[in-house]
Amino acid sequence: MTIEYDGTNYSGWQIQKNSVSIQESIEKAIITVTGQSINLTGSSRTDAGVHAKGMTANFFCDTTIPEKSIAAAINSKLPEDIAILDAQYVDENFHSRYSSTGKRYSYTILNRRVSSPLLRNFAAHVWYPLCIDSMREACKYFLGTQDFSAFMSTGSSVKTTIRTIRLLNLVHSDDIIKLYIEADGFLYNMVRIISGTLIDIGRGIISPNDITRIIESKDRERAGKTAPPQGLCLEEVYY
Amino acid sequence: MTIEYDGTNYSGWQIQKNSVSIQESIEKAIITVTGQSINLTGSSRTDAGVHAKGMTANFFCDTTIPEKSIAAAINSKLPEDIAILDAQYVDENFHSRYSSTGKRYSYTILNRRVSSPLLRNFAAHVWYPLCIDSMREACKYFLGTQDFSAFMSTGSSVKTTIRTIRLLNLVHSDDIIKLYIEADGFLYNMVRIISGTLIDIGRGIISPNDITRIIESKDRERAGKTAPPQGLCLEEVYY
Repeated sequence: MTIEYDGTNYSGWQIQKNSVSIQESIEKAIITVTGQSINLTGSSRTDAGVHAKGMTANFFCDTTIPEKSIAAAINSKLPEDIAILDAQYVDENFHSRYSSTGKRYSYTILNRRVSSPLLRNFAAHVWYPLCIDSMREACKYFLGTQDFSAFMSTGSSVKTTIRTIRLLNLVHSDDIIKLYIEADGFLYNMVRIISGTLIDIGRGIISPNDITRIIESKDRERAGKTAPPQGLCLEEVYY
Repeated sequence: MTIEYDGTNYSGWQIQKNSVSIQESIEKAIITVTGQSINLTGSSRTDAGVHAKGMTANFFCDTTIPEKSIAAAINSKLPEDIAILDAQYVDENFHSRYSSTGKRYSYTILNRRVSSPLLRNFAAHVWYPLCIDSMREACKYFLGTQDFSAFMSTGSSVKTTIRTIRLLNLVHSDDIIKLYIEADGFLYNMVRIISGTLIDIGRGIISPNDITRIIESKDRERAGKTAPPQGLCLEEVYY
């Protein structure tokens, strides 16, 4: 399934005690539709407040619902801030996370003095001036296959902290700065820490050619702050 | 003052009994800041669910607050879905509505099968296919000085129903259709009825060259439906 959601009112993708997760909301809708207990496997574990236009997830189930009716059937049981954009039957070996060959995220920054009522849940507000040229120059140092442990929050266990960033683009229009980042995979909070580091570069606290040294240090303390969740959106998962 | 707001959780601009309006919320903030009872005069009366990036409003008040501090002082007392973008002292004869020389609105349509969690409060969802070429062709018939009573909802009294539409542009990108419309002034629900009529044209129910006849008929019944409020945004008021 390909899924869009507004993460504002959720504790994140993953099921947690005492709070409503996106995973749980979709599982409940599927159970209502199919009458079967299922477990939903998501390709990413987005944090509270993070959005998705192209999250993917899979589940196993015996059902006679025609493929083209599955999304509409589940959507009829979902709240309006979650929607299944597409659903299809897949091979039993398919795994939404392990079968993925990469992901693309966007990070949106609003750069003006006053915060925006319309973008408050969809952009990070930075009120001080940012040097776009420095931010754009810094992007190239992140590209390629590198050990990104300096850009990972603690709290997840991974086999390797090496990732390949294929693309990191900055698009600037009026007071909106939009970052697009594509990699074979991401470490925990990696996009938000890269975004926070680029904001610190724009502010002049970090220099663009410090990036290589920060990556080589493997020291989380040397990278910038973790940018807030509402600017982040999972755009697409590749297979 | 120039004001941005997310109209989702309000009954509209104008003060009403038993519901929270944007006007009332801003008046309360100003009263807290200045310690004086004031009346806020807005340039437009946006309906429930309608948004603004550039609403304007004025009020009379004796205060020693420096001009450059007014917006920040009021913002500190406002909820996060309303923000004063700019405030300045004006001549006593200034009236946010009567001094205005024109306004620009945008109307956003999402044209795809599944509704969008991220745009649910900011676009009208049209699930059936729309013919963009027909919609674009129809735009030109609305331009100029004409009697737009066929494009006015009942419920407001106006001296004249003649208005001059200076610009009506359609911008199409992926599944988003955005209308931009500028006029010397607008009748009640005029932008939403024009948008609804353009949607009916896109669907093939109305033909582009019917527009002139519909305008000449002065008959509200002959125009299209009133498009839903969440797609509408007051972009700018001109002086």
